[in-house]
Amino acid sequence: MKKLNVGMIGGGFMGKAHALAYAGMPMFFWPAPAVPHRHTLVDVTDEIAKEAAAKLGFDNYSSNWREVVENPEIDIIDIVTPNNSHAEIAIAAAKAGKHVICEKPLARDAAETKTMLDAVEAAGVKHMVAFNYRRTPAVALAKKYIEEGRIGNILNFRGTYLQDWSADPNSPLSWRFQKEIAGSGALGDIGTHVIDFARYLVGEITDVNAVSKTWIPERPVQSGGADKLGTVKSAGDVPKGKVDVDDEITTLVKFENGAVGSIEATRNAWGRNNFLTFEIHGDKGSIYFNYERRDELQVCFSDDPGDAKGFRTVYTGPAHPYGEGLWPIPALGIGYGETKIIEAYDFIKSIVDDTTVSPNFDDGYRIAVISDAILESAEKGQWVNLDKTPVKTN
Amino acid sequence: MKKLNVGMIGGGFMGKAHALAYAGMPMFFWPAPAVPHRHTLVDVTDEIAKEAAAKLGFDNYSSNWREVVENPEIDIIDIVTPNNSHAEIAIAAAKAGKHVICEKPLARDAAETKTMLDAVEAAGVKHMVAFNYRRTPAVALAKKYIEEGRIGNILNFRGTYLQDWSADPNSPLSWRFQKEIAGSGALGDIGTHVIDFARYLVGEITDVNAVSKTWIPERPVQSGGADKLGTVKSAGDVPKGKVDVDDEITTLVKFENGAVGSIEATRNAWGRNNFLTFEIHGDKGSIYFNYERRDELQVCFSDDPGDAKGFRTVYTGPAHPYGEGLWPIPALGIGYGETKIIEAYDFIKSIVDDTTVSPNFDDGYRIAVISDAILESAEKGQWVNLDKTPVKTN
Amino acid sequence: MKKLNVGMIGGGFMGKAHALAYAGMPMFFWPAPAVPHRHTLVDVTDEIAKEAAAKLGFDNYSSNWREVVENPEIDIIDIVTPNNSHAEIAIAAAKAGKHVICEKPLARDAAETKTMLDAVEAAGVKHMVAFNYRRTPAVALAKKYIEEGRIGNILNFRGTYLQDWSADPNSPLSWRFQKEIAGSGALGDIGTHVIDFARYLVGEITDVNAVSKTWIPERPVQSGGADKLGTVKSAGDVPKGKVDVDDEITTLVKFENGAVGSIEATRNAWGRNNFLTFEIHGDKGSIYFNYERRDELQVCFSDDPGDAKGFRTVYTGPAHPYGEGLWPIPALGIGYGETKIIEAYDFIKSIVDDTTVSPNFDDGYRIAVISDAILESAEKGQWVNLDKTPVKTN
Amino acid sequence: MKKLNVGMIGGGFMGKAHALAYAGMPMFFWPAPAVPHRHTLVDVTDEIAKEAAAKLGFDNYSSNWREVVENPEIDIIDIVTPNNSHAEIAIAAAKAGKHVICEKPLARDAAETKTMLDAVEAAGVKHMVAFNYRRTPAVALAKKYIEEGRIGNILNFRGTYLQDWSADPNSPLSWRFQKEIAGSGALGDIGTHVIDFARYLVGEITDVNAVSKTWIPERPVQSGGADKLGTVKSAGDVPKGKVDVDDEITTLVKFENGAVGSIEATRNAWGRNNFLTFEIHGDKGSIYFNYERRDELQVCFSDDPGDAKGFRTVYTGPAHPYGEGLWPIPALGIGYGETKIIEAYDFIKSIVDDTTVSPNFDDGYRIAVISDAILESAEKGQWVNLDKTPVKTN
Repeated sequence: MKKLNVGMIGGGFMGKAHALAYAGMPMFFWPAPAVPHRHTLVDVTDEIAKEAAAKLGFDNYSSNWREVVENPEIDIIDIVTPNNSHAEIAIAAAKAGKHVICEKPLARDAAETKTMLDAVEAAGVKHMVAFNYRRTPAVALAKKYIEEGRIGNILNFRGTYLQDWSADPNSPLSWRFQKEIAGSGALGDIGTHVIDFARYLVGEITDVNAVSKTWIPERPVQSGGADKLGTVKSAGDVPKGKVDVDDEITTLVKFENGAVGSIEATRNAWGRNNFLTFEIHGDKGSIYFNYERRDELQVCFSDDPGDAKGFRTVYTGPAHPYGEGLWPIPALGIGYGETKIIEAYDFIKSIVDDTTVSPNFDDGYRIAVISDAILESAEKGQWVNLDKTPVKTN
Repeated sequence: MKKLNVGMIGGGFMGKAHALAYAGMPMFFWPAPAVPHRHTLVDVTDEIAKEAAAKLGFDNYSSNWREVVENPEIDIIDIVTPNNSHAEIAIAAAKAGKHVICEKPLARDAAETKTMLDAVEAAGVKHMVAFNYRRTPAVALAKKYIEEGRIGNILNFRGTYLQDWSADPNSPLSWRFQKEIAGSGALGDIGTHVIDFARYLVGEITDVNAVSKTWIPERPVQSGGADKLGTVKSAGDVPKGKVDVDDEITTLVKFENGAVGSIEATRNAWGRNNFLTFEIHGDKGSIYFNYERRDELQVCFSDDPGDAKGFRTVYTGPAHPYGEGLWPIPALGIGYGETKIIEAYDFIKSIVDDTTVSPNFDDGYRIAVISDAILESAEKGQWVNLDKTPVKTN
Repeated sequence: MKKLNVGMIGGGFMGKAHALAYAGMPMFFWPAPAVPHRHTLVDVTDEIAKEAAAKLGFDNYSSNWREVVENPEIDIIDIVTPNNSHAEIAIAAAKAGKHVICEKPLARDAAETKTMLDAVEAAGVKHMVAFNYRRTPAVALAKKYIEEGRIGNILNFRGTYLQDWSADPNSPLSWRFQKEIAGSGALGDIGTHVIDFARYLVGEITDVNAVSKTWIPERPVQSGGADKLGTVKSAGDVPKGKVDVDDEITTLVKFENGAVGSIEATRNAWGRNNFLTFEIHGDKGSIYFNYERRDELQVCFSDDPGDAKGFRTVYTGPAHPYGEGLWPIPALGIGYGETKIIEAYDFIKSIVDDTTVSPNFDDGYRIAVISDAILESAEKGQWVNLDKTPVKTN
Repeated sequence: MKKLNVGMIGGGFMGKAHALAYAGMPMFFWPAPAVPHRHTLVDVTDEIAKEAAAKLGFDNYSSNWREVVENPEIDIIDIVTPNNSHAEIAIAAAKAGKHVICEKPLARDAAETKTMLDAVEAAGVKHMVAFNYRRTPAVALAKKYIEEGRIGNILNFRGTYLQDWSADPNSPLSWRFQKEIAGSGALGDIGTHVIDFARYLVGEITDVNAVSKTWIPERPVQSGGADKLGTVKSAGDVPKGKVDVDDEITTLVKFENGAVGSIEATRNAWGRNNFLTFEIHGDKGSIYFNYERRDELQVCFSDDPGDAKGFRTVYTGPAHPYGEGLWPIPALGIGYGETKIIEAYDFIKSIVDDTTVSPNFDDGYRIAVISDAILESAEKGQWVNLDKTPVKTN
């Protein structure tokens, strides 16, 4: 069986998720198109990289990502670093002929993202951006219903991504609050997942109109580079640094096909943990999804009998997308890991089959264009129409 | 015990709700400030009015509302007719010195509403607009939490009112789809309830930015005047008439106190029946309410212990607003009737105590101003700042 | 229109609910079979009765129930007193030729209940026992599904009624904790509602096997007769009295048709307020109901398509049982009052139409037989087979 | 870092879950007490074993489990075969000095289970039975609340495990329906998980009283050995074989500490997928858990303020048991895999630290004793008191 060697740049939380995906993928999707092999892990120092490699099951480690990118044994470069380093690594990897999978958002803005898209297209390598949530089986089931016309023409999309891990003003100033590193705040970090849902399920967005808020203007400076997503609280008298990104974004959206809707992203919603939801109204039915209860999709069909009409709670399992490969009955439990395992499967399959996978760098670029427009709209206080940037058909 | 005679103009669905409220109010709130007496019911013909009076327990009936408004025995005029007749009746009632309670929205636009406000203020009578949903005990509990500072400063309000009774294109062209009678569509019919929530719970709205859609541009012309809210479906070959109001509105909102948010109203959301919800994020907690499960309020407090933090589902009962008067344990069941009974209680209390009750015609006018701004914003495609119309302190 | 005069014995919480039902019934079900008229209210003293009559809208009051029962103007005697007085009043009423509706449980045990059944049958009057919860539209919808065979043959019934109003040991020793007055504890007070559901939806129970617990063996003696359902907490040093009834009952049940199941009733379940639920598994589908969310019925049909199978949440409205008479769209809100309004309607209809209504005294008697068997089983620690007491076909 | 070699007997669905656990464990719990190495996989033929080894990442394969058990390189034997082979393998493994982890139920009845317990105790090896669901973080959180006294003394436990994968009579006659292989039906397969919860959370069970039903007495004979949990439906005219185990069990239970309750297990509950729930009432609070929404635990504390009392929905994350090792924020998603990763971690930790882990073979034996008593009770129609079999303190 074919083997593909992975060089992973970054060994933090996302690195763990990707490593689990590589280890678990063949177990779930067998026969695997190819077996991903955890070849080399890169982190900022040799010491850190060595430990991460041991922890995550990589054979080798390095603190020099350029060497790894150039290593002829490596087939895939997997980028799980903060946003500001994505472009440089991805471009180098593409030039070295490696297939590239990169965490989201691809880069800090559309212009930077475009350089990545151009590089992978020029190199002819496979590319993917890790909007893993659309690979939740329930989300793929929503896509299936829509494509089969079971909820009719879509009228409305309302998406939210609400979290509270940074609602506490003592939650530290990680890189996610710094524009120079992150590009934007809640928008890029979580809002882009909702934009990905919107494009995946409804279609292209043509216009946005947003408000943006930074609720906590400064935060305790973090000691150490680790990004603990708010679990480390600073004590009283630490120095504080400026937050220069959004804590919250809400935007109206219009779609090419006439649908309208809204997207909301905030990290200041006490009690919401990973409240990534969408509600879609079609002229023949409705769909509701909430990632916090990700085994479930709720769907209402307008042609149900009058005395038995209402939202069905469908638990995904073998009868649903990706289900044959997962667990044998519904509700055994889809976790974060499974979304990443499916993502790895689809990416590796696209390499072996020489096909295009979605979402790829073109999708990532389109999302960056939308994100920029959202920020522009919030700043100017007006609708922003999106230049019809060329969108590839996948 | 004091008795107040009610003349009710209109004997349809809302008339039933108000009649039940008058009958039930003293049973729930005892000793009652005064006992409302169902004196005269008015409808379009004597025959219809006679039957409605018998059904709803009124002593007398009439097809001449002007006579009833002038009747010196009458203390209260209750207006439960379509929107286009509210102003004329309310103004006449005020001039005759009657206290006035009127269904929402008060009138078809802000200008027309202003004539009503001016009339009741000039006459010095008590006035109320029947945004009953804010009298759901769970909504009043949300207000209490907010006023006591238990969720801190409010950052965000997201309100929705989703229904599906007119999602079927064969649902008839009732007056609710005709601008001449209704003023607006989903906005005035249901969106105004959300605006009422927003003002009640968060504060004054200063800016709006909306999209509006009419999904079903024509509907079967209705035979008969009754408004069956979509339950009567027309057969195939009936003539159709034009819908000239909105089926759906979504608007961004900004509040005077710095909070932001969105309001969405649609009657085309399959599977949503009376999905009137709000989610409010404060810097110390969050609240969620859904009228479809109206016995419950969900609240999360940020200062809960780390291992036991999350939304609580609080069922309202004797320990909560209006609870002493209602049922002896939570979840015996708040229905539509109870919201109207509480509304009647507060209105009659304001008459007896000579105090101001909320929401009154000033609130109704303010909501009309906001509604007009939403329509203007949707038409122009830009933010509309609300003239700082003088708002009374209640 | 025909009028039926009601003499109501008792003016407490249940009296309020029944009074509201009489006032509201014609508003909801029109043309009404007859209009119930609140003629005379009886309570323990003239003073109390006078105030209750004013509050609940009765024309007359009395402290002598025997006189009212004998009053030739009275058509219906409505008994809403503590359990120990039901039999005496009901028997006298039957002998006087009055139709009788009585709160549940009918009496303190089966023997006492039998005297009531015999009396109403001998007198040939109409009789009803007020198990109102089965008149929740969602419960009637469950019945409809079952009768139409839509969930197939029933395999299992699990019913619960969980409350917490007396979980606090300082909640006072009301009559509900005294065997002499109440007959039994959680079993009679709330468990009988579940037994009524079981018989209504599944069929006759043949065998029971129960455990019973009294968790709080003594409680503060209550000052005053009022039954505030736990909302009045006694201060520290009050005298305590013995609780001689069950706080909790769980029983296995077997049905005549081969189904099995369990019934659980407790008033010591913190966080459960009126958690009256059932789950029914048939060989073609399942049903779940929870009164705390009483507008909803959940149903799963086995023949749904494989990729869209799951529980539907059906909100009851005009398309469901009793819906034409209630509110024009689902989720406007069924409250406790509506269940009582429907109950009053069906009772009065049975009088006018000269038909039998369910649940009647025969049902009440059968439930008493089952309750006695449950207590016997719990005491003996063994299965108790129910004597096949003659059950009338309604 | 220490390495422990695993020989896994069985390569089906459970084998996948265990393989993922071994691969993922060090990624989640680092530094790992030892790194489990997937050394050899055993299945019924060399061909099947070879493919399973490739799929699940084992270095070697075999069709001779005895050889693997004797292999001195192997440290751990992991048994994921049908129930009838557990004892023989486990006893051989113990005799060979291997640590043993075995899927549940340990064996077909208590007597057989006892031979396994005796063997591991005689050999002094570490042993664990894979009741993985108690390692769901939300279940461990329930345990923590109880141990800290936060819901007081436990009064009641109600546990259910409802599935529908075999509700269809055409679902094939897998080994799970054959007493000779499985020992019992729903009881052993899923009911034992609930018994494990009951003992883990409440304490020792002393008495049981059960009903048992086999709803579908014969099923299509299955072609091939694979156990697809009902997803493979047989066509019309296949031969049928007898089901000689229970489809459904409901039992009353009494606990040593005075609590009472019930346990229900069925595979015939349409619409329930992996509906493994418990509700526990204490005298200071209540807990509810449903594995279908396994990221959540619901808890109600009686000492919450009167106007904010109710069940909290707590999403488990870093602040909860095992949370540091899992995902950085709540609701990223606990899947089936995570429960198995935690299980592997605790087992390997017990080996390295030379401590006892729970649930072990002693627990497994105690559960077998209870299961036997349940079957005996159902057959005899009476309470069965459990011999006070010696229970080890772990």
